[in-house]
Amino acid sequence: MKPVANLTDSEAAASSLDQTSTTLNIAIIGFGTVGRSVARILSERSSADLRLTHIFNRQIARKRVGELPETIRWTEDINDVLSSDADVVVELIGGLEPASEWIRRALKSGKSVVTANKQLIARHGAELVRLARENGQHIAFGASVAGGVPVISGLQEGLAGDELVELYGILNGTCNYILTRIESAGVSFAEALQEAQKLGFAEADPTDDVDGFDARAKLTILARTGLRVSADLESISAKTISSIEPVDFEYAKLLDCTIRQLSRARKTSKKLFATVGPALVHASSPLARVEGARNLVMSTGKFGGETVFGGHGAGGHPTAVAVVSDLIAIARSRQVNGAALNEAEGEIPTLSVSPDFTSRHYLRFTVQDEPGIIASLATIFSRLGINIDSVFQKPGYSKSKLPFVITLEPCPASLVEKALTQIASLKFHVQPCLNLPILD
Amino acid sequence: MKPVANLTDSEAAASSLDQTSTTLNIAIIGFGTVGRSVARILSERSSADLRLTHIFNRQIARKRVGELPETIRWTEDINDVLSSDADVVVELIGGLEPASEWIRRALKSGKSVVTANKQLIARHGAELVRLARENGQHIAFGASVAGGVPVISGLQEGLAGDELVELYGILNGTCNYILTRIESAGVSFAEALQEAQKLGFAEADPTDDVDGFDARAKLTILARTGLRVSADLESISAKTISSIEPVDFEYAKLLDCTIRQLSRARKTSKKLFATVGPALVHASSPLARVEGARNLVMSTGKFGGETVFGGHGAGGHPTAVAVVSDLIAIARSRQVNGAALNEAEGEIPTLSVSPDFTSRHYLRFTVQDEPGIIASLATIFSRLGINIDSVFQKPGYSKSKLPFVITLEPCPASLVEKALTQIASLKFHVQPCLNLPILD
Repeated sequence: MKPVANLTDSEAAASSLDQTSTTLNIAIIGFGTVGRSVARILSERSSADLRLTHIFNRQIARKRVGELPETIRWTEDINDVLSSDADVVVELIGGLEPASEWIRRALKSGKSVVTANKQLIARHGAELVRLARENGQHIAFGASVAGGVPVISGLQEGLAGDELVELYGILNGTCNYILTRIESAGVSFAEALQEAQKLGFAEADPTDDVDGFDARAKLTILARTGLRVSADLESISAKTISSIEPVDFEYAKLLDCTIRQLSRARKTSKKLFATVGPALVHASSPLARVEGARNLVMSTGKFGGETVFGGHGAGGHPTAVAVVSDLIAIARSRQVNGAALNEAEGEIPTLSVSPDFTSRHYLRFTVQDEPGIIASLATIFSRLGINIDSVFQKPGYSKSKLPFVITLEPCPASLVEKALTQIASLKFHVQPCLNLPILD
Repeated sequence: MKPVANLTDSEAAASSLDQTSTTLNIAIIGFGTVGRSVARILSERSSADLRLTHIFNRQIARKRVGELPETIRWTEDINDVLSSDADVVVELIGGLEPASEWIRRALKSGKSVVTANKQLIARHGAELVRLARENGQHIAFGASVAGGVPVISGLQEGLAGDELVELYGILNGTCNYILTRIESAGVSFAEALQEAQKLGFAEADPTDDVDGFDARAKLTILARTGLRVSADLESISAKTISSIEPVDFEYAKLLDCTIRQLSRARKTSKKLFATVGPALVHASSPLARVEGARNLVMSTGKFGGETVFGGHGAGGHPTAVAVVSDLIAIARSRQVNGAALNEAEGEIPTLSVSPDFTSRHYLRFTVQDEPGIIASLATIFSRLGINIDSVFQKPGYSKSKLPFVITLEPCPASLVEKALTQIASLKFHVQPCLNLPILD
């Protein structure tokens, strides 16, 4: 960090209130939508605490924009950044490599790091935090979960005094957009996905989003930050939303519910219960009311009860706000030696992960109608000690492809899976059974 | 601050990860519901960063509880605290005096302060922050607004990178409880208030809550923290919710709205628009869905758009979580010299306050019915250039005390007031007109 120099009068007046003001030199690596937003916000700030000094991108010539200060060094050689006087590297290239290597090199060369890279933090966060600490640096990742929703700092700071036991989140805007479109327009999953792709809300290859891998990485980071539990990313089960059909929203409505892609984690002394996938949520829940591509996180604390954080989960500007907020936090922390930024003291235990939440369940069967279907299902459930709560069959469907719904009283997800394995061998199925938890 | 001593093995193992661990000695002044919750949370924490050393209260003997560590010094002499080795004083006595004097003395004697005292911070926050800074101390007040909702830290940290322009809040749980009861049970304001008093949600003298003075103090603090604007508390107009009747919820429903006590502030280059009072909010807004005694704050940023923070606005445990989170932030900041905790650099301008928001308006008249009432109202509105949007009259009311509603197209609140002054002199009124803004 360098002392403030070349201030305008008003900046000098402002900074004179604060005897320890310093300016952080910032390097952005990866100059896409978020990078450009970060550069714009930095250029519009009146405070002199953050100065953009380097921008790295492949084929940098085509990225160059005129309205930024002439002093910025534009480069396509990462060594220009890593050997520079930048105090903080903002990593926005995404992906595991070379991001991981470059972040490590930055930390080792005495630079702090701000990143929006959820896959990297979910997999290597603990190790990178340790590396940062060993080098007297910070690594901040507020932009890696839910973009502009300030949930990482909320869990680290605002709720630090509580002991959080549970987190629920709508963490993937693409899924939320697709599901709300199936709900409101009655279109199929494929049509809703196509729409989302046209509008730029979904990638050409949507697997990461719709199959829950994106949300799973975010949940891993939230569990570590909020529940203070370390979990192996791959051990969290992720279910796709692609099996949801318009008829499921009709049945969900009969149950006063809607369907959302939900990420949830509950900590017990021995296990971390965690899953990502579509679930029925009651219409009165804040989770049911998250519209379009928004994100929402609900935490439950032992003392403070339920807290909600909501906002724009993605997009250049909201994500850039999270990046700049992290930069400001590093600037404020000033001392470049000492503990890692906002990182609570103490060990974070690694718990084994179980998907085996106990809840009510929604089972949608699609069958070739014949007498005795309900009876044969009921027999299997009853043998396993599972109680049926209700049976719904909406009129107007063909007998040869008839959807109907059974809801089950609360029981462990593993028991339902066991019943469904037996049920799968029955001959009347036209499609596999759709099994969703119902959240109360 | 003292080095960690006498750790258990697991604490020692945890703290060895962090070379700069220190223990803060904490004194609580005011040992009521929140104070007891703070003591309990501190006693249950495994980390050795915070140690409760002093508890002050008048008539301390009757406050003493057995389950806290024997090393705690219980006292009814404030000098025992102010001359002690406590590093942080937690002020929970409320009111302006002696809280103000004791906080000043604590800061001057080299102690940081955590407070839940909204009236004090709303009036003297700027000066106390300055005093803290001059003495190399921190003053933190996360518990002063919306209890357990981590909105102060959210605005100071998570959204620091944005430039916030507007804040909307449901900041008073008592009002929200009363209004939701009038709505759901159709009871009168007086009955709902009585219920709230019985349940402990309202004070014997409810003026501060129902007339908006409590919310106004919180809005002043939010405006300073989030919008970075200083405003004179008394200059923010506060309107009572006591004029709301069940019929208003019926009419609001026809407009797809409900009624909430709303605190709002919008910053422009020259003015701070700010008011507290009942308003119509659209049923789809998160503000409409805040239940019972919950709180919610929505902020709008230039870059990040809308962000929502929600949770328990009051109660011993949620407020205590906010206090302990502030204590942890002070412990983490470690350096007791330097800039004030989380306080952004730069000057905070004082803007003049205007209640003159432009919005649609809901006017509920209660009249002795006679021909020509609408015509005479329409004449006055039209002369002032105000457009009527709709007229509603529900059947079933007595002609001698007939409530009906006119909604106006967007216009400045001051213009509506001007029209209502002229309208007040007309002879058909049985009750004064109720005038509420409609938020879009």
